[in-house]
Amino acid sequence: MKEKQISGAVIARLPRYFRFLGELKDEGVEKISSRELSKLMHVTASQIRQDLNHFGGFGQQGYGYNVSFLYDEIAQILGLDHTHNLIVIGAGNLGHALAGYPNFEKRGFLIRGIFDINPGCIGSQIRGIKIRSMEELPEFVRVNRIDIAVIAIPKTAAVGVSQILVENGIRAIWNFSHVDLPVPEGVVVEDVHLTESLLKLSYNMTQETKGALRG
Amino acid sequence: MKEKQISGAVIARLPRYFRFLGELKDEGVEKISSRELSKLMHVTASQIRQDLNHFGGFGQQGYGYNVSFLYDEIAQILGLDHTHNLIVIGAGNLGHALAGYPNFEKRGFLIRGIFDINPGCIGSQIRGIKIRSMEELPEFVRVNRIDIAVIAIPKTAAVGVSQILVENGIRAIWNFSHVDLPVPEGVVVEDVHLTESLLKLSYNMTQETKGALRG
Repeated sequence: MKEKQISGAVIARLPRYFRFLGELKDEGVEKISSRELSKLMHVTASQIRQDLNHFGGFGQQGYGYNVSFLYDEIAQILGLDHTHNLIVIGAGNLGHALAGYPNFEKRGFLIRGIFDINPGCIGSQIRGIKIRSMEELPEFVRVNRIDIAVIAIPKTAAVGVSQILVENGIRAIWNFSHVDLPVPEGVVVEDVHLTESLLKLSYNMTQETKGALRG
Repeated sequence: MKEKQISGAVIARLPRYFRFLGELKDEGVEKISSRELSKLMHVTASQIRQDLNHFGGFGQQGYGYNVSFLYDEIAQILGLDHTHNLIVIGAGNLGHALAGYPNFEKRGFLIRGIFDINPGCIGSQIRGIKIRSMEELPEFVRVNRIDIAVIAIPKTAAVGVSQILVENGIRAIWNFSHVDLPVPEGVVVEDVHLTESLLKLSYNMTQETKGALRG
């Protein structure tokens, strides 16, 4: 693997390549040219060639890329060549949606437990996974070697919970709470701030309207 | 407003400023220095001064920024100085989570309707908003002047639904389906590809592990 020379910009594009390659693989496609991939992904063929050249000589003129090989190579770089143990904190609507999303398991993210403070839902199940009380959280994380915690609870509780997670060895937090989590070095946080995404959409829409009024 | 000179990088940071300024405003904070804001947001004070200088002379040495004024100014740039009419397509767990999120209404995104194909849920309500059948969608979008559609349905149906939306005058789509939507110029799409976010987390976690093994 030559990933050390891969720039951050290319890395940021890998999940999208991975998605398209995964779909092609599922459809039984074995080879694809940069031109075909370009049409599919709405990216220039030269960008694709540049990006995928980082992975060695997969693309050959008039031959195309080996879909399955490229898929596996990118999977390895993304850490998808082995499974990850996941828990979901918060069994509200968002927690339900995330815990019930079949694509995560398909990619090797195995949901091992769901936690909530609401006594009304503790003991019930989502897709066969039991909802547990927060008291069980610390031991569960340690004993089951949980790598990733998904935080889908109100922001007032999120910081406290993230501290418990970190103390018990969690390595990554996928954060849906609307707050920045203070974590020590070595712990990865990926924020999904939905409101910020909506504001970006609102900004772009506003710009389009102004353009149309001017035009 | 001087927004024309504001770079894309600054614009991308505005939603985060807006979030922090909104919280300060809610707490009754009237002024804040770039140093205090820097600590709060984990961004350098010089970055903050550079970014916020685009909005004119709000920051004064030893005085700080007027929180409310800056909040309103950013709100205007983000298109939040007026309300937007929203619909949610898909009343599954994710649709429920999005339709039930109180922060959106607070920012002026008013959910006017929810649509689903499942006869079992049509007619029931989420937070007082009726779930309607997809047959009602085209007329509803036109009559109620819906600006934004949230797409929270499986990807197989998403492209077809986006076409119906566009034909009936939708201006922006907030897309949670795992597919790129082909829309004409002038229609804004903001994608939230959750799997890609999880893959990014997985990549970063893998890099951390390698770093720790090497270190």
